[in-house]
Amino acid sequence: MVEKRTLASELRPEMDGKDVLLMGWAQDIRNIKKIVFVVFRDHTGTAQLVAVQENLDKKVFEDISKLSPETCIKVEGVVKKSSIAKAGYEVHIKNLEVLSKAEPLPISVVEKDIETGFSKRFDYRSIDLRKPKSLAIFRIESALVQGMTKYLDENGFLHVFTPCIMGAASESGAEVFRIKYYDREAYLRQDPQLHRQLTIAGGLDKIYDLGPNWRAEKSHTVKHLCEHRACAVEKAFIRDEIELERLEEEVIRAGIKNVLQNCERELSVLGVQLEVPKAPFPEIRFPEVYEILQGMGKRLPRETDLDAESMELLAKYVEREYDSKFYFVNRFPFAIKPFYVMRVDSEPEWARSIDLNYGSLELSSGGQREHRYDVLMSQIKEKNLNPKNLEWFTQFFKYGVPPHGGFAIGVERLTQAILKLPNIREAVLFPREPDRLLP
Amino acid sequence: MVEKRTLASELRPEMDGKDVLLMGWAQDIRNIKKIVFVVFRDHTGTAQLVAVQENLDKKVFEDISKLSPETCIKVEGVVKKSSIAKAGYEVHIKNLEVLSKAEPLPISVVEKDIETGFSKRFDYRSIDLRKPKSLAIFRIESALVQGMTKYLDENGFLHVFTPCIMGAASESGAEVFRIKYYDREAYLRQDPQLHRQLTIAGGLDKIYDLGPNWRAEKSHTVKHLCEHRACAVEKAFIRDEIELERLEEEVIRAGIKNVLQNCERELSVLGVQLEVPKAPFPEIRFPEVYEILQGMGKRLPRETDLDAESMELLAKYVEREYDSKFYFVNRFPFAIKPFYVMRVDSEPEWARSIDLNYGSLELSSGGQREHRYDVLMSQIKEKNLNPKNLEWFTQFFKYGVPPHGGFAIGVERLTQAILKLPNIREAVLFPREPDRLLP
Repeated sequence: MVEKRTLASELRPEMDGKDVLLMGWAQDIRNIKKIVFVVFRDHTGTAQLVAVQENLDKKVFEDISKLSPETCIKVEGVVKKSSIAKAGYEVHIKNLEVLSKAEPLPISVVEKDIETGFSKRFDYRSIDLRKPKSLAIFRIESALVQGMTKYLDENGFLHVFTPCIMGAASESGAEVFRIKYYDREAYLRQDPQLHRQLTIAGGLDKIYDLGPNWRAEKSHTVKHLCEHRACAVEKAFIRDEIELERLEEEVIRAGIKNVLQNCERELSVLGVQLEVPKAPFPEIRFPEVYEILQGMGKRLPRETDLDAESMELLAKYVEREYDSKFYFVNRFPFAIKPFYVMRVDSEPEWARSIDLNYGSLELSSGGQREHRYDVLMSQIKEKNLNPKNLEWFTQFFKYGVPPHGGFAIGVERLTQAILKLPNIREAVLFPREPDRLLP
Repeated sequence: MVEKRTLASELRPEMDGKDVLLMGWAQDIRNIKKIVFVVFRDHTGTAQLVAVQENLDKKVFEDISKLSPETCIKVEGVVKKSSIAKAGYEVHIKNLEVLSKAEPLPISVVEKDIETGFSKRFDYRSIDLRKPKSLAIFRIESALVQGMTKYLDENGFLHVFTPCIMGAASESGAEVFRIKYYDREAYLRQDPQLHRQLTIAGGLDKIYDLGPNWRAEKSHTVKHLCEHRACAVEKAFIRDEIELERLEEEVIRAGIKNVLQNCERELSVLGVQLEVPKAPFPEIRFPEVYEILQGMGKRLPRETDLDAESMELLAKYVEREYDSKFYFVNRFPFAIKPFYVMRVDSEPEWARSIDLNYGSLELSSGGQREHRYDVLMSQIKEKNLNPKNLEWFTQFFKYGVPPHGGFAIGVERLTQAILKLPNIREAVLFPREPDRLLP
């Protein structure tokens, strides 16, 4: 008996005569008198299996002819070259063991004409994941993250873990989930940034934190999640925020490169054409943003954030002028940014804040942080915040903090962007929404 | 002017005459009339700087002589070979820029005789991290995680993200943090295991999830945290739980190998001797555990978990018999294990549950899970649980789930074990405890 498992993707006509052990699912069963055809599937693809009654033990053949779709099976068989079979081979079953049988499924695993609606797909997510397209998304997301973290590892960034439970609400206070923490109230972080900064103040120099973040928004858009993940990077001793742009685009490029190297089949399953974006990514800056928009017939009020329409227009502009989907927006108005961002000293209206966008989708925000204690404190006053509430953070800036900055790349957003997924939920195994907590 | 930063660890006497750019902290300043000696520190080590008044601009020398300890500085200098200097060289300062000055520190960064107490260290964690020992721990933890995930990546495990917010309390219900989730109550996961299993049921085959977990225990021991991280692995189509032991020990060995390859200096800072543990790790099993303990004078009651004393004795036994710190305990009584574990069919008293211990410290628990729907349902009844509450999970086992299992290795526990840290908090940047939420 063969001990080593063969994967569907490893089968070849040239293996003619070779005994194999397959483990996966009976995706489709066709019973033609004394022959049963089984479409076998594992996480790498499908294969045609054939059971011929006269070659098999009576009990085994009976089991095979009674197989229900999606039953989990273990098959011993022999590869036979075949000029009729589409793949150029079939696997003739010698023995089959039912590992776990399946009842009729509530949703289809092999979608042909009818597509299951989103809500139902996520009700039955554990079945929905068996679709080759679902699986392909997560293989790609894993390769993307792997490529990004490998780049960071190789460039001396330490993989660290910052806290998820916050003792103080973030500066805005809005949209946080509240926790009963023993006899107190605490909060789930929206972003681990302040703790990344405290880590930098602690001398760790270059770090990344790949973890969850939460946002208690009631909105149900195709690009928001209540629980999402970010690859959050922070670097000490930077010259300025432009250095972060160069770093961020290399992280993104390394992720996409890794997808291209390892997920050719998955990209083809999804019908996605993917290329490593050229560096440097274009950058557009405030206040020029106003002029660009005005030239396209849009007047964006001062001291407001980019709205959806502006994002669409900027995406068009960048596509036209630079032939690029990825682009940075830099030097946002300080008025709309948090207290901790660094401004341009000579032009205090503008912050060294950068967003990375893909078309009209925001992938990340970041920039250079203010490291000078006195400036930080005056910015807190300017934002009408209570310095006392932020003392747990600001006190450390009295003890010699280097110039630093960073960014947090949304893992699901980036996956959504490069795979052109209509809904971000497709890039989450088990999404959390205002009205979805299960499975 | 030199543009490229040189790290303290890169300086060598052979660089005599070379111009360098250093960025870091002025750890110690000694003012001897017309010469100032500065002990410079960055994240890689220290270096002796010398400022000679007659060679410097008046303003620069004044700045240097007024430096306060832990001021963040940028130094242009030239390396000078020196037979007197301990390192064989000094860096003569040509220019120095104060990036951010430091007030007198609340705790010492360079501990000599007096050690700061735990509580104070964590009150000022962002300063405490600057100690070479603190920094060394996180460089090692990062290398450990990197080694483990690299092994998993190279062996085809997908990096996935499972939800942290749970819509249903875990099977025990105890010790979970409660969240206000819009108009409902939700919970922070204690372990992402059930979702790992649903991912396997979705056909993802081999996965790992490196994320946070929470435990709302009131205890203040040296090995418990309210928020900790685990490298949680799950694998489909396993033969049995023994296969998981082989996988787990390779993950651990790969992590330690990576530390040895990349953290020689950090291990020496901590004074730790580390070796890659020999595989296979020894395994001891119930019911033999009773006999082993009895032989050492301890009677462990049936259907109870190992207590602290038993753990100490087993650690001694394994050290004596196998000369190993790492060891597995297998086949725990089903009575003390959750409903989802797989039992030995022919000996239903015993579960295919494995713990990995290091001495008397539990590093991970895991084992083979029950994948057969009918057996799973009968175990739920046996445990007196309400099947309705678990239907969100169990329903998927009706649709062909492969045999599977896994384990979750506590990242901080493993770091604590290999570095012999007296308190697990030292392996967390910003620990969360029942009475600590800040910083």
